[in-house]
Amino acid sequence: MTSPVDIVLAVHGGAGAISKDVISDERERDCHAALAAALRLGYAVLAKGGSSLDAVVASVCSLEDCPLFNAGRGSVLTYDARVRMDAAVMEGKDRRAGAVTNIHGVRNPVWLAREVMNSAHVFLTAEGAVEFARSVNAVFESDEYFITPERLLEWQETSASLAKTSVPAAVGTVGAVALDRDGTLAAATSTGGMVLKRWSRVGDSPVIGAGTYADNRSCAVSATGYGEIFLRAVAAHEVSSRVRHLRQDLESAVDVVLLDVQRLGGEGGMIAIDPTGNVAMRFNSEGMYRGYITGKGHLETKIW
Amino acid sequence: MTSPVDIVLAVHGGAGAISKDVISDERERDCHAALAAALRLGYAVLAKGGSSLDAVVASVCSLEDCPLFNAGRGSVLTYDARVRMDAAVMEGKDRRAGAVTNIHGVRNPVWLAREVMNSAHVFLTAEGAVEFARSVNAVFESDEYFITPERLLEWQETSASLAKTSVPAAVGTVGAVALDRDGTLAAATSTGGMVLKRWSRVGDSPVIGAGTYADNRSCAVSATGYGEIFLRAVAAHEVSSRVRHLRQDLESAVDVVLLDVQRLGGEGGMIAIDPTGNVAMRFNSEGMYRGYITGKGHLETKIW
Repeated sequence: MTSPVDIVLAVHGGAGAISKDVISDERERDCHAALAAALRLGYAVLAKGGSSLDAVVASVCSLEDCPLFNAGRGSVLTYDARVRMDAAVMEGKDRRAGAVTNIHGVRNPVWLAREVMNSAHVFLTAEGAVEFARSVNAVFESDEYFITPERLLEWQETSASLAKTSVPAAVGTVGAVALDRDGTLAAATSTGGMVLKRWSRVGDSPVIGAGTYADNRSCAVSATGYGEIFLRAVAAHEVSSRVRHLRQDLESAVDVVLLDVQRLGGEGGMIAIDPTGNVAMRFNSEGMYRGYITGKGHLETKIW
Repeated sequence: MTSPVDIVLAVHGGAGAISKDVISDERERDCHAALAAALRLGYAVLAKGGSSLDAVVASVCSLEDCPLFNAGRGSVLTYDARVRMDAAVMEGKDRRAGAVTNIHGVRNPVWLAREVMNSAHVFLTAEGAVEFARSVNAVFESDEYFITPERLLEWQETSASLAKTSVPAAVGTVGAVALDRDGTLAAATSTGGMVLKRWSRVGDSPVIGAGTYADNRSCAVSATGYGEIFLRAVAAHEVSSRVRHLRQDLESAVDVVLLDVQRLGGEGGMIAIDPTGNVAMRFNSEGMYRGYITGKGHLETKIW
C-alpha cells in the first residue's frame, strides 16, 4: 500500500452473562466512559502516526487501570484470594509476540508482555516473569491497589456458593486491536482470569493463537470468554486462517469460530480488524463491553 | 468410517544441530533403540485396540524416562541449574487438551498433562501445576533422578561460553502422534526447554496450537525446534488449517509451515499424521531423531 490507510481501533472489556437487570445505570455509564477513554487514548497514538502496537498497549493499559474490568486493578481473585494476571501482545508485520501468565504486583501486565516481546523470548510465566519484570523496571503496586472491595465481595460470595456453580464466569477480560497508518495490525489482551481459579490455571488470553493473534496478511484478534474452550479451538488463529486461506470476510470468520466455540461448550466474543480497516465485534454471550473508533474520530461503545 | 482404520504411530526425540561428527556410534545406537522402544510401547497400546491418546502418552513417557532426550529425566538445566519441564497432550475427536509448564519433580510431565485434560482446565503452570500434580497423586522423583551427569556438564560448559552463543540450542524435545482403530488422532509433546532458560520461559511444546495439536478433521502434530518462532507461527495449528481449509497434503502443509518458521528465523521439525494414516516427519535442521511404526508392525527410526 502506498497511500496511508485509514486508522481504526477497537476495544473490549469482556463478554459473558452481563445482565441488564443487575448492572446499575451508573455502572453502565461508567463502563461506556471507560471504553471511550481507552479508545481515545489508543486513537491519539494512531492519529499522530504512532504504531498499532503502541495504540493497543495504551488502550489496554487504560482498561487495566480501571477497576471496573477484570484485568490489572480490579482483577478477580483466585481460590486463595490473590490476584494472578495474564496478558499478551502481538504485531502483525513480523508476527512478533510477547506474553506473560500468572504474574502479580505488576501494574500493567500488557506493558510487561510488550517487554517480553522485545526480549529473546515470547512467553514467560509466574515467578520467573515477575523476576523479569523487576529486571526491566516494571511499575509495581501493592495488593491494596489491585484488590477492589467489589472483587473481594464477589470472592466471598462465590466461595460460599461454590457448590452451586460449575464453571465460574470470567467477565471483564480486556483487549484491543488496531490498524495504523503503515497498514500494520496489532492485538493485545489482558485478564485476571477466572474467579476462584486454582493451580495457576491459564486461559486463552495470553496464549498466542488462542486469545491473541495478529498477522498483516489476515487480521488482528482479541478474544474473551470461556478460556479453556478458546484454547482448544485455537480461536484467534483460526479466525486468521479462515480469512487468509478461505478468503472469508472477517465477520463471517469470527462467527464461524464462535459457533465452533459454542459447539465445544463455550461462549464469549472476539474483536477483530483486517488490513482494510473492517472491524468485527461479535459474541454469543449475553453481552460484550466493546467499542471502536475510526480514522475520522467516530466513536461508538456498546454492551448488549 | 465403518471399517477399522490402520493404526500408525510416529515419535520424535528432537530436531536441531545434531552433528554426525559429535555423536558417538554408541550414542547413535542408543538413540535408535530408545526411539524403537517408544514406538513399540505405543504400538502395543494401539494393536490391542487402545486409544491414540493412551498410545502417545505411553510413547512419550518412555522417552521422558530415557536420559538421552531433553524431557523428563535428562532435561536440560535452567540458568540456575534446575529442571523445569513442559508438556501437552491433545486428542482429535473432541479436541480435548491438557498442558503444563514449568513443573518440577513430576516424573512424567506428559502424564500430568493428560490429568489436566481430564480436569476442568486445559493449561496449568509452575507451582500451581505442581500442587495439582500432588492432588492427583503424580509420581515424583528427586533432583538426582532428573539431572544427569551429561546435562550438568552441558550446563557448566554452556554457562562458561554464554557470551559466545546468542540462542542456545534446544535439541531433544520429545513427541508422538498416533491414529487408532477408531480413526481418532492424538498428539503429545514433552520438553525440558532451552538450556540456561530464565524467567520461567515457555516454548511452543506445551502451547496448544504451537507445538502440539490434534483434530480428527485434519491431522495430529508434534513440533520441536526454536520454540519462540514456532509460537509466533502457531505452527501445529497452521499445519492443521492448511490440511483442512486448503486440502493440502500433510507433507506439503508441514513443509510450508517449516519454510515460514525458517523465514521468521527459526528451525526445527514436525511429525504429523492424518486420518488416513499418512505420516510426515520433516525438518529443516541438521537432523531429527524420529521413527514410525505401521499397522503391520513395520518400524523405522532415523536421525539424519
